[in-house]
Amino acid sequence: MDIGIVGATGYGGADLIRILRNHPEVDNLKLYSSSQSGESIQNSFPHLQRLSEVRLQDINPGLMGKSLDVVFMATPAGISSELTPELLKEGLRVIDLSGDFRIKDSNIYEEWYRKKPAPVQWVEKAVYGLTEWNKRAVTDAQLLANPGCYPTATLLGLLPLVQRSLLEESSVIIDAKTGVSGAGRGFSAAAHFSETNENFKIYKVNRHQHTPEIEQELARWNGRAEPVTFSPHLVPMTRGIMATMYAKLTDAVTEEEVRKIFQDSYQQAPFVSVRKAEDFPETKQVYGSNQCDIGVSYDDRTGRIMIVSVIDNLMKGAAGQAVQNFNVMFGFEETAGLDFLPVYP
Amino acid sequence: MDIGIVGATGYGGADLIRILRNHPEVDNLKLYSSSQSGESIQNSFPHLQRLSEVRLQDINPGLMGKSLDVVFMATPAGISSELTPELLKEGLRVIDLSGDFRIKDSNIYEEWYRKKPAPVQWVEKAVYGLTEWNKRAVTDAQLLANPGCYPTATLLGLLPLVQRSLLEESSVIIDAKTGVSGAGRGFSAAAHFSETNENFKIYKVNRHQHTPEIEQELARWNGRAEPVTFSPHLVPMTRGIMATMYAKLTDAVTEEEVRKIFQDSYQQAPFVSVRKAEDFPETKQVYGSNQCDIGVSYDDRTGRIMIVSVIDNLMKGAAGQAVQNFNVMFGFEETAGLDFLPVYP
Amino acid sequence: MDIGIVGATGYGGADLIRILRNHPEVDNLKLYSSSQSGESIQNSFPHLQRLSEVRLQDINPGLMGKSLDVVFMATPAGISSELTPELLKEGLRVIDLSGDFRIKDSNIYEEWYRKKPAPVQWVEKAVYGLTEWNKRAVTDAQLLANPGCYPTATLLGLLPLVQRSLLEESSVIIDAKTGVSGAGRGFSAAAHFSETNENFKIYKVNRHQHTPEIEQELARWNGRAEPVTFSPHLVPMTRGIMATMYAKLTDAVTEEEVRKIFQDSYQQAPFVSVRKAEDFPETKQVYGSNQCDIGVSYDDRTGRIMIVSVIDNLMKGAAGQAVQNFNVMFGFEETAGLDFLPVYP
Amino acid sequence: MDIGIVGATGYGGADLIRILRNHPEVDNLKLYSSSQSGESIQNSFPHLQRLSEVRLQDINPGLMGKSLDVVFMATPAGISSELTPELLKEGLRVIDLSGDFRIKDSNIYEEWYRKKPAPVQWVEKAVYGLTEWNKRAVTDAQLLANPGCYPTATLLGLLPLVQRSLLEESSVIIDAKTGVSGAGRGFSAAAHFSETNENFKIYKVNRHQHTPEIEQELARWNGRAEPVTFSPHLVPMTRGIMATMYAKLTDAVTEEEVRKIFQDSYQQAPFVSVRKAEDFPETKQVYGSNQCDIGVSYDDRTGRIMIVSVIDNLMKGAAGQAVQNFNVMFGFEETAGLDFLPVYP
Repeated sequence: MDIGIVGATGYGGADLIRILRNHPEVDNLKLYSSSQSGESIQNSFPHLQRLSEVRLQDINPGLMGKSLDVVFMATPAGISSELTPELLKEGLRVIDLSGDFRIKDSNIYEEWYRKKPAPVQWVEKAVYGLTEWNKRAVTDAQLLANPGCYPTATLLGLLPLVQRSLLEESSVIIDAKTGVSGAGRGFSAAAHFSETNENFKIYKVNRHQHTPEIEQELARWNGRAEPVTFSPHLVPMTRGIMATMYAKLTDAVTEEEVRKIFQDSYQQAPFVSVRKAEDFPETKQVYGSNQCDIGVSYDDRTGRIMIVSVIDNLMKGAAGQAVQNFNVMFGFEETAGLDFLPVYP
Repeated sequence: MDIGIVGATGYGGADLIRILRNHPEVDNLKLYSSSQSGESIQNSFPHLQRLSEVRLQDINPGLMGKSLDVVFMATPAGISSELTPELLKEGLRVIDLSGDFRIKDSNIYEEWYRKKPAPVQWVEKAVYGLTEWNKRAVTDAQLLANPGCYPTATLLGLLPLVQRSLLEESSVIIDAKTGVSGAGRGFSAAAHFSETNENFKIYKVNRHQHTPEIEQELARWNGRAEPVTFSPHLVPMTRGIMATMYAKLTDAVTEEEVRKIFQDSYQQAPFVSVRKAEDFPETKQVYGSNQCDIGVSYDDRTGRIMIVSVIDNLMKGAAGQAVQNFNVMFGFEETAGLDFLPVYP
Repeated sequence: MDIGIVGATGYGGADLIRILRNHPEVDNLKLYSSSQSGESIQNSFPHLQRLSEVRLQDINPGLMGKSLDVVFMATPAGISSELTPELLKEGLRVIDLSGDFRIKDSNIYEEWYRKKPAPVQWVEKAVYGLTEWNKRAVTDAQLLANPGCYPTATLLGLLPLVQRSLLEESSVIIDAKTGVSGAGRGFSAAAHFSETNENFKIYKVNRHQHTPEIEQELARWNGRAEPVTFSPHLVPMTRGIMATMYAKLTDAVTEEEVRKIFQDSYQQAPFVSVRKAEDFPETKQVYGSNQCDIGVSYDDRTGRIMIVSVIDNLMKGAAGQAVQNFNVMFGFEETAGLDFLPVYP
Repeated sequence: MDIGIVGATGYGGADLIRILRNHPEVDNLKLYSSSQSGESIQNSFPHLQRLSEVRLQDINPGLMGKSLDVVFMATPAGISSELTPELLKEGLRVIDLSGDFRIKDSNIYEEWYRKKPAPVQWVEKAVYGLTEWNKRAVTDAQLLANPGCYPTATLLGLLPLVQRSLLEESSVIIDAKTGVSGAGRGFSAAAHFSETNENFKIYKVNRHQHTPEIEQELARWNGRAEPVTFSPHLVPMTRGIMATMYAKLTDAVTEEEVRKIFQDSYQQAPFVSVRKAEDFPETKQVYGSNQCDIGVSYDDRTGRIMIVSVIDNLMKGAAGQAVQNFNVMFGFEETAGLDFLPVYP
């Protein structure tokens, strides 16, 4: 396979390189960057000393169409919406890590992203790549919209119960926490060390662009889904997301029954683990891996279920899941290139 | 004033020393430790080089009764319950930073703390020192039960609305996050650097001992209060607590009306600041100070109010509030010794 | 006293505000910013909620000359060199926290700073404000060049021995480590959280601009001083500097004699503490304070002395020492406004 | 191959499991623990959810001798010295990660470790496994003494020049910095989060037990080697070591010639990279990998060479190098199981 990565000098690109360099089905990895073409990738990422020198290439859809089988777009929202259609027209299959093709309703995209939406015809064709829940569609996708980091952790934690209508629709609250790498490699106050270290903050209150993505997918699995409260917070660490989710149950199910539902939902899922009673996952326990670990607790004092879901935001929340989708799209083992353990501690 | 600090070698002790050493009404600061009596405090805390050498003294209630005006108990739960009554019998006024005298119902104390409760007669007399809400009682207290760190952040954020019955009682969720110093100076896996750094975790799910403290105080201000969901998380930082609180409003109040209620509630409170619309406090913005900063947001998509409250867990959550109560108990300026700005960045 | 701070929205400015707001001799604190004049300081620094609202003013030397007694320049190198002379011409006394007036030789300034030097006549008049070693000159200074953070930690650690010609001149190595706040509030890769957290790096190898400042001051106290090796490193923390210094002794002095020399040198210095044998200071032990703590060790296996010196880079390394110099310049207690303990932990 | 890991519940064990689980030549991985035998490894390390459940076994040299090909000892100093000989007597090959068999002179071991030395006959037979410098002996080792983390970073940085007698023997200073995981999983003040976070400290001044290990190996390659100054510091991060090394050159070699010597020394070394001029490695650039990256600088102002060497202390400094030695001992590809990139950021 000949693979291209556009946006190779960002953090999504770094983890794609890390994974694909050791992927058993990848022969050839080409890196693209509009701003740094001609330069060596080691200039941007000195940790890649072990790679033989690879030069970043200019983005030329025509040439890329001739020499590649698939392109990973690891570019920010607003760039992919313009570039991806050009690649698709060349017959390439594209796995897009940005949010540009995830939201089916262009008005909603525009409202939450404050950017021009991607062409409707491509948005319609895009397959939402939450692998565990959409595997059949992923198989045939030409354009794969890779889920956002928060929606991945959230949906894997909610869907088993939402699908079975076990949650009171209006009661869902997602209190989410992310490491700083989610802000990308670009400079900002939120990513400035002295402003962020020894600090914990909430941000984009009631206006984070992952909210409509979560709601769209909940509604896909349960027509009565209602708006959710989604509150993202910033943790002084580099990698990791935890979503702590609260809801009322519609039915008198026990915690053990809920856990059983999760285990059934994910028994075929190589990357999702459901923890035992009173065992809750920590973000570091999935660090650097494509794992999603889930813990469940029911409190009879309040009649409320709580679900805790953790992922590495750059892996299962971005590059890892993108490769998982790549595997499914091309008929490889779902775990190919991803079958390694977290780095701990 | 002659002041004693018992448990001077812990983190609560460190901040009490920092504050009281510069307090305009304190003449004499005596430090007590059962395990390290005779040693210099600088052995435990080398950051105290600027203090002339102070030796830790043995705990002797009789002698302390003769030479002190007030004692700050900065000892863990389970120790204060035994020692404090002895000091009270000597006629001393005691400000207790532990949880031993906060819970009025001994059965509840025993259930959540898993320790033997303090003597009932003293628990009954103990005044709960959430200064902003209980100032009159604090003035006359012989035994002051200084609030827990989480309850302080939570109650300051909820009481203005709970008092006015503006929250649906069954809808209150507190998603709380703390720095690691809350675990104290004793060794534990939760305080082990390599297990905690670059990690975010939830702990004591549905069984944190601050839960009944919060519920007791909510019920004091509103008889219809119901059990709350309280979920504490551990942040890889040393100081700071954020409580993110969610509830449904009972009434069609606007965000601005809610903000106005907070401003009215705290206009006389020198340490509580209510932020403007779309401005939310970060833990670092109160670092090292006795401040509590509060932000409010109403989401009309979900009909849910969110309140964000931050404190420094060792200051307003422990030593700072203890000194604030000390000031009120002895008729000093409420801000005496505490009128300094946060350390930022 | 009426005080002005230029560059109030940077980190040096933040600590100046924190200190001067509680300084017993300061009546009036005016804040200046070229880029944000008219805005409230709380926009830049939300941690300043306890201040009544203060608006940033435009920089107008004429008006400032009429209303101020002294100006603290907390601006980057290259800006102070132009603005400070205008303020001096208005008769103001200026305490400059930048490096623009520290280096007496303009060629050396230009070589290491790669900027246009300040006017020679003002550089000549500038007094180097390493308070403990230059107090007499500080008293009369119109223009005070406040030392750099690294030179402060280094010189306080070396001068007692250099002054007495006890170090082999060619043997001095300074391996220095700083927190990230030293890079200021501006955006850069070195201050980007994900690049810096869980990372340790060396930077500006053999070309840090504090090197000639250290050498100039060593030479002032000992004419035979030679070039030193100075290697700065970046630590994933916000505040703090440690200088670990190595040299060969010229004479057969014992470790105890060396320690005695330090104690004698600093017995009148309220902010410098010399540690006992086998006790070495840690950066956190001076966090938020104006302290400099020094440890000394002699290794007879190698015949080498090692000196460890720690400061808070924003305090004794910037704002704290600036206020200390202000106190000396105006005849106040040297510790006025600075007599508080470190924040620990 | 059937592999045993003794001390599987420590940090060395965690990385051995991570590597060996994916090693192409390993069939069977058995985990041993004296204190937790019978328990599942996931109790100790919840990040190992992807492993099928593995139970820790009791340490029984007789049984181990029958079922294993090789044992990795990831136990603390003082334990290996007793247990390893029993395993060796069973004919097992042992790779020991502790310091117990590294120091050839038992008196020196006792002086620096303050423990009873291992039996002389085994110490004599032990092969010091700095793979790049001792490959032939490693091949035949029955007992492999895996180097310490600091000595690995230091020796890889010094040996190319020491071997050629290019350094003045008395001028060598090693200023070393480590992440906290080097202190292991046991509790201690040095590993306590609140004492270590936002802190930088020096420790074991002139008495770190890796000092004689470094000196012994320098002397092996150059008979005129002299005692070195070795100063370890603790960085508030989990993984990573940097050794900043200073020395005077004996000869008029240029920086480029020195770099060429390093490149020649390591051109066959798959895990050592020598950086270009003015490019210095950062610890995070080798995070989670078996890399050692080296930067070199010569300063003609001082006539001093500086060498910067970084490794991941748990990988090239422990488990990674242990597997590298395992590969050499059994004739596998040197990079088998280790050919993955660092996790960045």
